[in-house]
Amino acid sequence: MNLFYQPAISEGSLFLDQEESRHCVRVLRKTSGDTIRVADGKGYFYEVVITKADQNKCLFEIQHQFQQEHRPYSIHVAISPTKNADRIEWFVEKCVEIGIDCITLMDCKNTERSFIKKDRLHKMAVSAMKQSLKASLPLINDVTPFPQVIGNAQEEMKFIAFVDQSNPDHLKDLVLPNRSYMVLIGPEGDFTKEELDIALRSDFKKVSLGSSRLRTETAGIAACHILNLIQS
Amino acid sequence: MNLFYQPAISEGSLFLDQEESRHCVRVLRKTSGDTIRVADGKGYFYEVVITKADQNKCLFEIQHQFQQEHRPYSIHVAISPTKNADRIEWFVEKCVEIGIDCITLMDCKNTERSFIKKDRLHKMAVSAMKQSLKASLPLINDVTPFPQVIGNAQEEMKFIAFVDQSNPDHLKDLVLPNRSYMVLIGPEGDFTKEELDIALRSDFKKVSLGSSRLRTETAGIAACHILNLIQS
Repeated sequence: MNLFYQPAISEGSLFLDQEESRHCVRVLRKTSGDTIRVADGKGYFYEVVITKADQNKCLFEIQHQFQQEHRPYSIHVAISPTKNADRIEWFVEKCVEIGIDCITLMDCKNTERSFIKKDRLHKMAVSAMKQSLKASLPLINDVTPFPQVIGNAQEEMKFIAFVDQSNPDHLKDLVLPNRSYMVLIGPEGDFTKEELDIALRSDFKKVSLGSSRLRTETAGIAACHILNLIQS
Repeated sequence: MNLFYQPAISEGSLFLDQEESRHCVRVLRKTSGDTIRVADGKGYFYEVVITKADQNKCLFEIQHQFQQEHRPYSIHVAISPTKNADRIEWFVEKCVEIGIDCITLMDCKNTERSFIKKDRLHKMAVSAMKQSLKASLPLINDVTPFPQVIGNAQEEMKFIAFVDQSNPDHLKDLVLPNRSYMVLIGPEGDFTKEELDIALRSDFKKVSLGSSRLRTETAGIAACHILNLIQS
């Protein structure tokens, strides 16, 4: 089953962009009268029938619209961009496959890169959304200073992944189902003591993700996966 | 903390290879008399003192040896190589970070690539082992035909990730702690009905990894992560 993407379908954009049209018409050989499925990235799927199989602009008519199953919880991961941009792009792809609602790139004291090409991340997210047959894209927030990330946090359960002498509880043992969650994942150099204190003062709970020392992007995926597992 | 790799240290190879020597001497500026930690990839760490800080062949003396903490369980993931080799290399890196004992590349009916550069996978595994401060490398088995993988399976709990109408139980709900586990992860085109039947006849249990449709390499990581989570 193939899924296509048209973010403006509900505003009447009843066509696929050039790249999607090429894939649909030239690669998959879809033709007029064929039914395909389109996602808007906002939680809706559309069954549509191709009316003009143009490989530059494939036109269609909507047959019906249906909503992606609602999840009674939400996951927000705020993560420090990695030195190697591929790693954060990979993190976005995997989290979208597994299930995530919001990603914030977080600029910490030890963050080694404070610029990320957001259009690349969006591309990764769209392709992962299509691959995993979902209809919604996560909100991806630009690089934001750590204190501001903390200040903006509205979630019901807030965690900071940080392992020190005090051996914090494992994330999986603190999560209650069906809540809104936020997890902070630090840079390779980890959060500073000051950053940890700021988070703790703002009701973030210190958690461990297990005994292994994980790379930043792996820790981000692990946190997202654990929060999804607790629910299912 | 930096970790270096010398697989033959117990056979008396008291030096780092050229690449490791460069990193140790030129990049990290280690010098004679400095103490560094070396892993042999077989479960042992060595505290060693540098005796000759040569950037082509850094010599050292062993101070003492200690064993990596033993895990009372073992994880074996047999996975179909992905069309894009990067994805399986990434799978190896992430599983080593999270914790895995054996990886078998499995040639299924729908497998799109039956050749994988094992030296590349070994390189990924070594760098991930060092990154996550572990002392052991997983055994990585070459591409093996599906029936042979099934025939060789010796683990106490054997699972095949396969989602169909019968909605199998989630892996996390079937795992008992402290066992030897094996999980089969199929290609993008999934296992064939015949392959599924062969596995079921050989006492593999059909399991789900959750409601999301995951790419092959993501499913492999998810399975490895779940098996580690059940223990901790």
